[in-house]
Amino acid sequence: MFGNAMSEKKGCASPISTRLAEMKGINLDANANAPVTRRVVDAVMAGLAAGTNPSSAHAGGAEARETITRARDAVAALAEGVFDDGVVFTSGCTEANNTVLHAARALRATLITTAVEHPSVLSPSAALQRDGISVIRLPVGGDGVVAFDELERHLGAVRGAIVLSVQTANSETGVVQPIQEIARLVANRGDILFHTDAAQSFGKLPLVLGDGGAHAASVSAHKLHGPMGTGAILLCDGEDRIHPLLYGGDQEGRRRAGTEALPLIAGMGAACAERADQLDADVGRMRILRDRLEASIVSSVDGAAVNGVGASRLPNTTSIRFEGRDAMEIVARLDAQGILVSQGSACSSMRPTPSHVLVAMGLTEAQAFSTVRLSTSPMNTEVEIDRAIAAIERVCREVSRAV
Amino acid sequence: MFGNAMSEKKGCASPISTRLAEMKGINLDANANAPVTRRVVDAVMAGLAAGTNPSSAHAGGAEARETITRARDAVAALAEGVFDDGVVFTSGCTEANNTVLHAARALRATLITTAVEHPSVLSPSAALQRDGISVIRLPVGGDGVVAFDELERHLGAVRGAIVLSVQTANSETGVVQPIQEIARLVANRGDILFHTDAAQSFGKLPLVLGDGGAHAASVSAHKLHGPMGTGAILLCDGEDRIHPLLYGGDQEGRRRAGTEALPLIAGMGAACAERADQLDADVGRMRILRDRLEASIVSSVDGAAVNGVGASRLPNTTSIRFEGRDAMEIVARLDAQGILVSQGSACSSMRPTPSHVLVAMGLTEAQAFSTVRLSTSPMNTEVEIDRAIAAIERVCREVSRAV
Repeated sequence: MFGNAMSEKKGCASPISTRLAEMKGINLDANANAPVTRRVVDAVMAGLAAGTNPSSAHAGGAEARETITRARDAVAALAEGVFDDGVVFTSGCTEANNTVLHAARALRATLITTAVEHPSVLSPSAALQRDGISVIRLPVGGDGVVAFDELERHLGAVRGAIVLSVQTANSETGVVQPIQEIARLVANRGDILFHTDAAQSFGKLPLVLGDGGAHAASVSAHKLHGPMGTGAILLCDGEDRIHPLLYGGDQEGRRRAGTEALPLIAGMGAACAERADQLDADVGRMRILRDRLEASIVSSVDGAAVNGVGASRLPNTTSIRFEGRDAMEIVARLDAQGILVSQGSACSSMRPTPSHVLVAMGLTEAQAFSTVRLSTSPMNTEVEIDRAIAAIERVCREVSRAV
Repeated sequence: MFGNAMSEKKGCASPISTRLAEMKGINLDANANAPVTRRVVDAVMAGLAAGTNPSSAHAGGAEARETITRARDAVAALAEGVFDDGVVFTSGCTEANNTVLHAARALRATLITTAVEHPSVLSPSAALQRDGISVIRLPVGGDGVVAFDELERHLGAVRGAIVLSVQTANSETGVVQPIQEIARLVANRGDILFHTDAAQSFGKLPLVLGDGGAHAASVSAHKLHGPMGTGAILLCDGEDRIHPLLYGGDQEGRRRAGTEALPLIAGMGAACAERADQLDADVGRMRILRDRLEASIVSSVDGAAVNGVGASRLPNTTSIRFEGRDAMEIVARLDAQGILVSQGSACSSMRPTPSHVLVAMGLTEAQAFSTVRLSTSPMNTEVEIDRAIAAIERVCREVSRAV
């Protein structure tokens, strides 16, 4: 089935390099997936070559465990307040979010979250609610920032344990939540497991756990050029309230059973190490490219406006509504020109419903349906950005305004 | 952190080929992990190169979805009674087992399983029991085969829905359970979700779902030369009683949320396609090598005997007890000579407890601690087997019998 395609490839260096070279398209959808780097590819290859189960007692197993330990160190190094034994590898951020929220069962806690979380928080919250757990969804303001007074009020009113899950940054708008301020409220009340979905911010903004931050964070490899299919729960020192969602072997300190995805974990380690090595340059580059994109479009396209513009935002993300135009039409026309952008988060991009994030921010359905998300990575170039700007301006002239 | 190791590698063809060539050791631990083949490596590389999220609406997303569809077809083709939409990719067999067993909650079912299941069945069963689900663990006979009369009795006595989980083959002994006969009992009673953990048998024995088989099976990529960290739930046509364990996006027909592990899924597809292409040759080869290994050792080492010898067994596995000798010592001495074998399943190989499988078969603790598992793959050669036989004979002369 894979036979013909594979046998044409001599050696294994060619497919990636050929493909990367062939990618004449412009990827402005890094929040859905940031393509792997050469260093990540090499690490995945080395992980594949290991050939032994990390749980095996023999020398081969020890070597595989060493690979995982190196990756664990590299992931921990991108966060403050996390030691290597605070890194629990999972199959991605969805599993990480589900696992942390699931602690609400054992803790008999009230779950407080926000209306703008990713589906991998909202959907398990709904499942917990069906099972009898009380769930409170905090509203956000017009800028996408969580209603702080509402949070304060609920923290005072709720009796008993609380699991609080607030994203660090929104995947669609890039709007950043005041995690440090929330951590202060949490410290004052006590009996709260404070979790943050940091999938989009990890490696783009500082992540602090413990003092001044959440107790637990969920992160994903493929948002920072690691491979799809792996991620981690990060825990501050001494945090032991997480309960396994997957039971079985003794992997991951008995907090997550299952044979480790060794190649992907090695790739995630490499991605984190690479980001750490060039953190300022990468983040600066994403920001410059995003700012150039955003400023040009807003100034040249009539009716274009940035969602969440008043708030602190991720350096690489812009959510632009093209008032009166159909975003699906814009996305499709750009796609036909090899420019990859999206309407919202990939995990809900196939649904014909308006973005729950934008609706929560007070946008009308029509405004939500007119919004396009653009997200940059350090792999993008100035030339790409300028070509994208020109293409977007052209498409916006073609797609007439309905209003 | 990974920097030095990575930067020394020019191109990516070298690490794998070098490593495979360097593997002068003899891997007789295929049940823990069967090393990846070249075809699998190529498929993982192609999956890494895809670079777009399969959930993205744009053309890049469509291409990634196509990769997953091809893998789904290849996995389904290794089982009878499974169509492509009956393949639910997971992070491995542990997640697959946990997900299927978890259906007992929603079905308000009694869970019936066996005493010799893998920890990824036994451990979630214990968790369900703590949550109030009735769990029955069927005993096995001295040959490791499930007590059929006990199963029949419980199926008659239990009222209401049942989730029945019986492994196809045991990972430690290779003993095969009478799935077809059990399927007949299940069909007669009705209101049973019949699941089989087929991790070790997939690609070694025929797997039939639906008529004459279970309704659901769990399989793993890395037991048949696919990468570690992916697997699947296979469902017979129309089976809809499985409930998600991971909630979030709409991936996998809304049965398993989370961005797909595209590189690993591509690798699993390639492994399944490769096995399908050379099924008879691979299985025949594993059996010849295992038989040669087993017969030589039993005839030449005093006190050596095969566990479960009377039962139908996997073609590649032998569980040999070296009466009066310490298996840990044997494993360590073979390891020092580059020969990888194990005491039991990798997922519990670090524990200083006797194998629950062997104890359930009536072995004494001492006999369990004297047992070594040897498992072959088609990658092994006759020369390796003969070297391993000589080494095991030598080690058994060195490790004196305590009795």
